[in-house]
Amino acid sequence: MTEKTLPLLRTIEWKNNKVVMIDQTKLPVELVRVEYSDYLDVANAIKTLIIRGAPAIGVAGAFGLALASLQSKSSTKEQLISDLEIAKKILFETRPTAVNLAWGLEQIMMVAKKGNTVSEIQNLIINTAKQMAEDDIKINMTMGKYGSELFSNNDTIMTHCNAGSLATVAYGTALGVIRATKESGKNIKVIATETRPVQQGSRLTAFELKHDGFDVSLIPDTAVGYSMANKLVNKVVVGADRVLRTGHVYNKIGTYQVALMAKQHGIPFYVAAPLSTFDMKSSPQEVIIEQRKGTEVTQIGDRKTAPDGINVINPAFDMTPPELISGIITEAGVAKPPFEESIKKLFEAKK
Amino acid sequence: MTEKTLPLLRTIEWKNNKVVMIDQTKLPVELVRVEYSDYLDVANAIKTLIIRGAPAIGVAGAFGLALASLQSKSSTKEQLISDLEIAKKILFETRPTAVNLAWGLEQIMMVAKKGNTVSEIQNLIINTAKQMAEDDIKINMTMGKYGSELFSNNDTIMTHCNAGSLATVAYGTALGVIRATKESGKNIKVIATETRPVQQGSRLTAFELKHDGFDVSLIPDTAVGYSMANKLVNKVVVGADRVLRTGHVYNKIGTYQVALMAKQHGIPFYVAAPLSTFDMKSSPQEVIIEQRKGTEVTQIGDRKTAPDGINVINPAFDMTPPELISGIITEAGVAKPPFEESIKKLFEAKK
Repeated sequence: MTEKTLPLLRTIEWKNNKVVMIDQTKLPVELVRVEYSDYLDVANAIKTLIIRGAPAIGVAGAFGLALASLQSKSSTKEQLISDLEIAKKILFETRPTAVNLAWGLEQIMMVAKKGNTVSEIQNLIINTAKQMAEDDIKINMTMGKYGSELFSNNDTIMTHCNAGSLATVAYGTALGVIRATKESGKNIKVIATETRPVQQGSRLTAFELKHDGFDVSLIPDTAVGYSMANKLVNKVVVGADRVLRTGHVYNKIGTYQVALMAKQHGIPFYVAAPLSTFDMKSSPQEVIIEQRKGTEVTQIGDRKTAPDGINVINPAFDMTPPELISGIITEAGVAKPPFEESIKKLFEAKK
Repeated sequence: MTEKTLPLLRTIEWKNNKVVMIDQTKLPVELVRVEYSDYLDVANAIKTLIIRGAPAIGVAGAFGLALASLQSKSSTKEQLISDLEIAKKILFETRPTAVNLAWGLEQIMMVAKKGNTVSEIQNLIINTAKQMAEDDIKINMTMGKYGSELFSNNDTIMTHCNAGSLATVAYGTALGVIRATKESGKNIKVIATETRPVQQGSRLTAFELKHDGFDVSLIPDTAVGYSMANKLVNKVVVGADRVLRTGHVYNKIGTYQVALMAKQHGIPFYVAAPLSTFDMKSSPQEVIIEQRKGTEVTQIGDRKTAPDGINVINPAFDMTPPELISGIITEAGVAKPPFEESIKKLFEAKK
C-alpha cells in the first residue's frame, strides 16, 4: 500500500511504544494529534469521543491493551494476564454497543495467552495490534471494491454520521465505499447529514470528504425527508456499530429514520461493515443501547441551547430492521436479503 | 381573559406607540424584550428570527404597518397609502412561506383604505393590529379546546419546532392544544425535538413548557424514529406555516419526516393552525420554500462546526402530504380526511 493510494488522514497508529490519534473533538477547526502512553488515557479517549467509529475503537482497544502490557509491573505471565484482564474490562466499558471494541480486546487476549514470557507477550500484543490496524485498511479497501459496484455514475449518495477514515484506521467503511466508487472513475456527489447531537456528519464526514476533494453538501438531520422527497439523493450508505446475524443493524442514532424514509422513497439503503462488526450470537432484545449524557443535546460546546431542569433522551444508537436494508457490504462480499442466509454464507466463504 | 389563565410569556405587544417583543434569539439563556419605533427594525426582527412563528409574524407585520403609518410624513390619504404599500412590500419579503404574514399585512391595508384622514387611518391601523393580537389569543384558546378532545390522560405528545406562546401572541397553536389538554385535567408529558438548525425546539419549546411547569423531554431530531419505535410517544401535534385547501401542510423543516415515521408506527399526527394560516388558492407546485443561509447549519453561534467551502442545503420548511395527517385543528373545529371537503366545511361554517 503506497502513500499515494492512501488518504492523508490516519486516525490511529502505534509510534515508539505510544498510541497516536487524531483528536476528533477538535475537528473541523483544528487537525491535532494526541499521544498516549497510559491505557487509561486511551479508555478516556474512547469514552469522550476523541476517537470514535466502531472499527477505529476496535483498534484503539487493542493498542490500549498493548500499552497496558508495557505499563504492567508483573514479572510472570499470570500476573501480566491478570493486569490485562483489568485493563480489558476498563477499556470495554467505555462504549457498550459497538462489537468491534469487544472483538479487538478478545483478539489481543487470545494472542497474549499464547506467549510465555512477559516480553514475548508484550511483543506479540504490539505486533498483533499493529497488524489489526493494517488489516483494517485492507479490509476497508476490499469492502470498497465490492461496494463500488452498487453505485452508478452521477449518483448522489447520502451518508449519516461518520463511517470514514476517521471512523476506521484510514480508509473508511461507508466512506471507503464512496472513495472506491470515485476511484473506479464514477462521478458522484455526497450529501452528509449533520448527525446531532455530536455532529459527526458536519465535523468529520464533511471535513474528510472536503479534505479529499469530494463534492459534499451538508444538511441538517431535519432535511433528510425533504432531500428525498425532492429527489436530491438516489442512494444511501452508512456504517454500523453492530450487525446481527438476522441483518438487524445498530448504528448512530438517526440511521433508522434515514432507512425508513429511503424505503418510502424507493431509494436503496446500504450498510458497509466489516465482518468484525457482526454479532452472530445476540438477538435484538439483548443489545444494550448506550444512553449518553444530556448535555450533548442541551449545549453545544459550552453554549447552552436548552433550559435547565428538563429531561433529555439521548440514545447513541438505534436499530434498523433488515426489511429496510438493500444490502450489507463486507470484505467477503455483499449480503442481500434474506440476510440470515446471505450473512451465514459470507462467514462460511471466509473460513 | 384574566392574567391567571394566561401564561406569562407575551411574545409581542403594542405599548406607547411602540412594538415590544421578546428577543427569541437570546432564549433560553436570557429572557429580554426589544422595543421598536421603526418598521424597518420590525422587518429585520422578522428576518433574523428575533420573532418567528407564523401567527406571531402575522401580528408583527400588522404592528410594523402601524409603525409605518406613524413614521409617514404624508399629509394626504393617498400619500400615506403609498408609503404603507412600500412598507408592506419590505415587511412581506422578510419570510415568503408563512401565509399569516401576507394575511396580516392585507388585513391592515384593507382597513387603512377605509379611513379618510391621516390620523383616522393611523388610529384604525393601530386599533386593528391590537385587535388582531387579542384575537390571536382567543383563536388559540378556541383551537386548544377543540384540540384537547383528541388527547387522552397519560398521553406523551411529541411536538416539532415551536408552535407555542412564542410562535403566537401568547397561547400557542400546537402548544396551545397541549396547554388546553393539561388545563382540561389530563395528565400529559411532552417530547420536544431539538429542531435543527435554529433549535426552536430546545431553545423555545423546552423553555416555554418548562417555564409553564410541564414535564418536557428534549430529543435530538435524530431520535424521533427511536422514540417512536420504542413506544416513548403516542401522539404528535405540530403547528403550520401554510395549509393548502387540499390539506398539504408546510411547516418547519423536519415535520414531513416526523409525520412519515408517525404513520409508520400508527401514531396519530395532528396539525394545529388557525384559519389565517390556510392558503385556499395555491397548489403545492406554487409554494415557494424559503432557503436560508448555510451558516445556520455550519456554525452554532460563532462556533464553527463544519469545514469551509462545502455546499449546504438549508430549506426552512418542508411539505407534509395530507395522507400522513390525522386531523387539522382550527378555531372552527377539527378537519379530518378527506381534507379538501372538511376544510371547505370549516370555512363555510365560519362565514
